[in-house]
Formats: sequence, C-alpha cells, structure tokens
Amino acid sequence: MEKVCFGIDVGGTTVKIGLFTTDAKLVDSMEIPTRKEDEGSHILPDICQAIEAKLVEKKITRDNLVGVGIGIPGPITKDGTVLNCVNLGWGMFNVEDKLSQMLGGVTVKAGNDANVAALGETWQGGGRGFEDLVLVTLGTGVGGGVIIGGKIVTGSNGAAGEIGHIPAVTHDAETCGCGKKGCLETVGSATGIVREAKKALAKSEEPSKLRNIEDFTCKDIFDAAKEEDKLALEVVDKLAYHLGKAIAGIAAVTNPQVIVIGGGVSKAGKFLLDKIEDNFGEYAFHATKNAKFALATLGNDAGMYGAAALIIG
Amino acid sequence: MEKVCFGIDVGGTTVKIGLFTTDAKLVDSMEIPTRKEDEGSHILPDICQAIEAKLVEKKITRDNLVGVGIGIPGPITKDGTVLNCVNLGWGMFNVEDKLSQMLGGVTVKAGNDANVAALGETWQGGGRGFEDLVLVTLGTGVGGGVIIGGKIVTGSNGAAGEIGHIPAVTHDAETCGCGKKGCLETVGSATGIVREAKKALAKSEEPSKLRNIEDFTCKDIFDAAKEEDKLALEVVDKLAYHLGKAIAGIAAVTNPQVIVIGGGVSKAGKFLLDKIEDNFGEYAFHATKNAKFALATLGNDAGMYGAAALIIG
Repeated sequence: MEKVCFGIDVGGTTVKIGLFTTDAKLVDSMEIPTRKEDEGSHILPDICQAIEAKLVEKKITRDNLVGVGIGIPGPITKDGTVLNCVNLGWGMFNVEDKLSQMLGGVTVKAGNDANVAALGETWQGGGRGFEDLVLVTLGTGVGGGVIIGGKIVTGSNGAAGEIGHIPAVTHDAETCGCGKKGCLETVGSATGIVREAKKALAKSEEPSKLRNIEDFTCKDIFDAAKEEDKLALEVVDKLAYHLGKAIAGIAAVTNPQVIVIGGGVSKAGKFLLDKIEDNFGEYAFHATKNAKFALATLGNDAGMYGAAALIIG
Repeated sequence: MEKVCFGIDVGGTTVKIGLFTTDAKLVDSMEIPTRKEDEGSHILPDICQAIEAKLVEKKITRDNLVGVGIGIPGPITKDGTVLNCVNLGWGMFNVEDKLSQMLGGVTVKAGNDANVAALGETWQGGGRGFEDLVLVTLGTGVGGGVIIGGKIVTGSNGAAGEIGHIPAVTHDAETCGCGKKGCLETVGSATGIVREAKKALAKSEEPSKLRNIEDFTCKDIFDAAKEEDKLALEVVDKLAYHLGKAIAGIAAVTNPQVIVIGGGVSKAGKFLLDKIEDNFGEYAFHATKNAKFALATLGNDAGMYGAAALIIG
C-alpha cells in the first residue's frame, strides 16, 4: 500500500486538510470549520477526528501514515512551540508534541502558516526546483517566508519572513496594523493600495476611471492601470517601487535564487511582476541581481502543500 | 597528541594564519604577505608552505591536523567555488578542492571573509552562545554576515550578508562604490560618515569642533559627539537612524537572537551601540524586538576564528 501524509493549514475560519501520497500528489482534501470558542480547545480534536475518519474511508492503515504537517496562523519556534496564537485563541504549548500524542505517536511537524506556504511554493509551486527562495504574499496584509537550502527560516521567535514589517516608507507614511509607521504592508497590501489610490485621488484633479467607481477595489486599480489610466498607473508604480526596493534589501541579506509573489494582489499577474522586477533591478546589489521572479501557483493550497512538505519535502 | 586545525583569513595585503586546538584555543598565529601578482597564483602555495613549516616547527603529525578553514575576500558558493575574486586576482575555481589537494587530502572548508568573520563572532566573539546572528561590520565599507542555526547563510551567489548594499537613503542619497545610489554603505562606512559630516558643515553655520580639525576622521566625529558637539551629534544620530532602521528590516527577514556590530567604526563603543539600538527599537516589528545588541570582540582575528569554526565550530 502507498505511503501517505497529511498537510494541514489552520486558518482563522477553516482548517484545510490535504491527503498527499509520498510522491507529492494531493489525492484528497477537505475543509472543516475552525472552532475558536473555548480558547480554541476543539481545533486539534476536530483535526484528529477528520484525519481518523479519512484513514478509515480510504482504508489506510496507521503504518502507512508517515506523518502530519501543520501550518499555524501565528509565531511558532523551531521545536514546534506555539508562542501565542491570538487568531485561534491558543496560548503557549508544543503543538507538535500534543497533536502527535493525540494521533497515537505519529510524527508531527509544525510551522507558521506564511512560512509553510513559502515551503509549499518551493516544493511544488512557483519556486519549484529552487532551494533558496523568498515568498512575498500580497493579500489583506503583506506576509511571506524565507527558505534557505530547502528549509524554512524560522527565526529566534518564529518571526522570520515578516516581510510586511520591513520599514519601507519614509515620507507621508501611514500607521501599520502593528503600530509602527511606514511598514511595507502599509503600501503593499490590498488595503494599503486602495488607501494610496484614495489619497492620490484626493490630492489631484487628474481625471481617472477610479473616480467613477464607488468603493473601488485593488483589482479595479490594476484594471485601470492596465488600461493606462494615469493616476492608477502612478499608484501601481509607487507600489512596485516600494516592493522592488524592499525585495532588493531582502536579497542583500539572503541572496535568494527566486522571489515568488503570491496573495490576492498577485492576481494582477505579469503586469505587476514586471514592474516589481524593474524596480528590484534598479536597487539590487549586482551580485544578487540575477534572482528570478515568479508568480505563486498554488493559491490557497500553498499551506497544505507546505505542511505536507514538512514531512515528505 | 592534541588535534589542531588552521583558520586562515586571506586579505588583500596579508594572509593571517591561526593555529587552533580543537577546544577553540588560538595557540599560534602568523601573517604572510598576499602576493597578488601572476593572477594570485602564489597565494595558495605560500599558504601551504607556511602551514607545512608550522606543522614541522610544532611537531604536529598529519593525522592530528583535522582540517583547514579559509576566508576569501570575494563571493564564494556553498561548495567552495570562488566566483571571481578581483581582490586576489583569482578567476573561478574550487578553492576547497585545490587547497585540499595541495595539502595531501586534508579537509578544507572555505567561505567569504565577511561571512566567516560573522561565524567567528558567533563561535568565540560578541555573539557567543547564540546561533541566529547578524554581524554588521562598519569599516571602510559596510559588510556583514548572517548566521542561522550556527551556520553561514551563503546565498545563491555567495552574496548573502551584503548588508552594506541594502537600499537605505532616499533623500540626498550618495552614489555607492557599487554604482547604486543610497546604499547603507554610503552613510554607514567610515568614509560615508566623514562625508556626511562635511556636508553638514557646509550646509550650516552651526559652530562645531570639527571646523577646527583639518581632515577630521570618523573618530574625531564620535569624540566631538560624545562631548555634545551639536553638529557631530546630528551626524551620529543620522547614522544610527539609518543603521537601526536597516537592521530592523534585516530582523523582519531573519529574526536573529543577536546583532553584533563590528569594524573600525564600532570602536565608538556603547555610545554608538545604544543609539543604533534605540532606532532599532523604533522601527523593529514587535516579535523581532528582543534581539540583543553586542559589540564584536575579536577585532581583526574574527576571520581566523571563523575560518577555524568552519572546521571545528
């Protein structure tokens, strides 16, 4: 019988559970609600129940389950200790030990969800074939992960890859959700991009398609920019400037082979990627300049893939 | 008989060769000139000769030599391939293989000199006891190294830890030796600090002790600042701002336990360290904020120590 593992991505709303064969194929997946009540104490039992049920359904015996990988939306240390996961209501405990115990001693490996997603993109996504990678996720916030030698860089408090909080903006800087001013997230997130566009509209008399769209979204801005709407283009160019420059800084630190851009904002595709790469070329140290740029390809499944890669990657 | 290794730091002018016992003690050291003529082809034979002579002198038999570590002033890949070391006149070749062959098969490990110095500071210097470290070297230029899990981060082209080339200055930015504008090196190096002071003197009428010193040095600026010379203080504060902010960016990428400040400029001591740390505290993401700051302690020996650490660290 084929050997399998589970790759689990715990989100604030749902838990995604993927069943992988050891040749990296996602053969089945399911989603269960994340029950955050009672300090998140139902989450791990719910996951165990789902895993046990799937093993029975698929007639997989215990000795064919090589392990369970799990991504958590919060900081987690190298040894699997969750530090304080407010998104799930969890305090401090070792999630690897606990889940392993609940599953009768199965190997469990855990990581931060953004870092695990970076591992997923390295293993089977946009960064496939590379072992030194940086993932930059442009979504509601800006996150990411750093992979060196095919392994997640966790950092001393599990806070490596917190790319959204690189100081980036010096003038006219907005306050970030973290409390600091001028973080990359303030201009690189979907929310930040919309805010920047609104600021630009308020500041000028420049005609723009965006003026006709009530509550325009990040996608509207990119659509307008692609149609050469001058104001929208300026907003996108400013975004690409800050991203390219920050990534040049990251490259001077870890010198990656490939930079993968993911998250909802990355749906703007090659149009955005090329602009980021141009700015990167402008600001990157020559010895780091040949880094490739790629779009993430696993979308919302990156977390499941990366979690599985913790076991079989 | 005690086991030993050599830690070698190849500089543009001299080669420093340290003899270490495997309990990390530097028991002897010597310096030979770096003969760069003939495409640097004498450098490795000179090193071999010095090693052989030292083994004879100390009556150390071959089987008690556990290995030779070597730091090179240029980019070098994980497998020991020197890419193009203009400082030594070297082209592309595997220095580990070549030196090992010349020494009759002894284990040889090589690294970039700045990265190797970071390893030295981690092993026996200012970062002792930590395994996730960033070294920032403020000298003629700004260099550094990144250590994760006690190992050097090399990067895909050996260009990891090129901290001096992080984009840092946006306004009134100077051109860096690398050709880019606004690199951290343009304000953080000894040369950069003196230039910034000259600019500040030219721009204002502010009285300053520096006006009375012809060709003042970086040390003069720090001395004046320590005596509360307003203009000198402003120059130091600006330096500390750029360094603290750039280090906050580095911390968002690798989340180190400790940041070690070295190089000639770091002789300004705790006065400078505290100012950098204050700015770091201002710009660092909360989960990375508890990084410790320390001064490098090995000085010019860091390279020898780090090279030895490649073998016995």
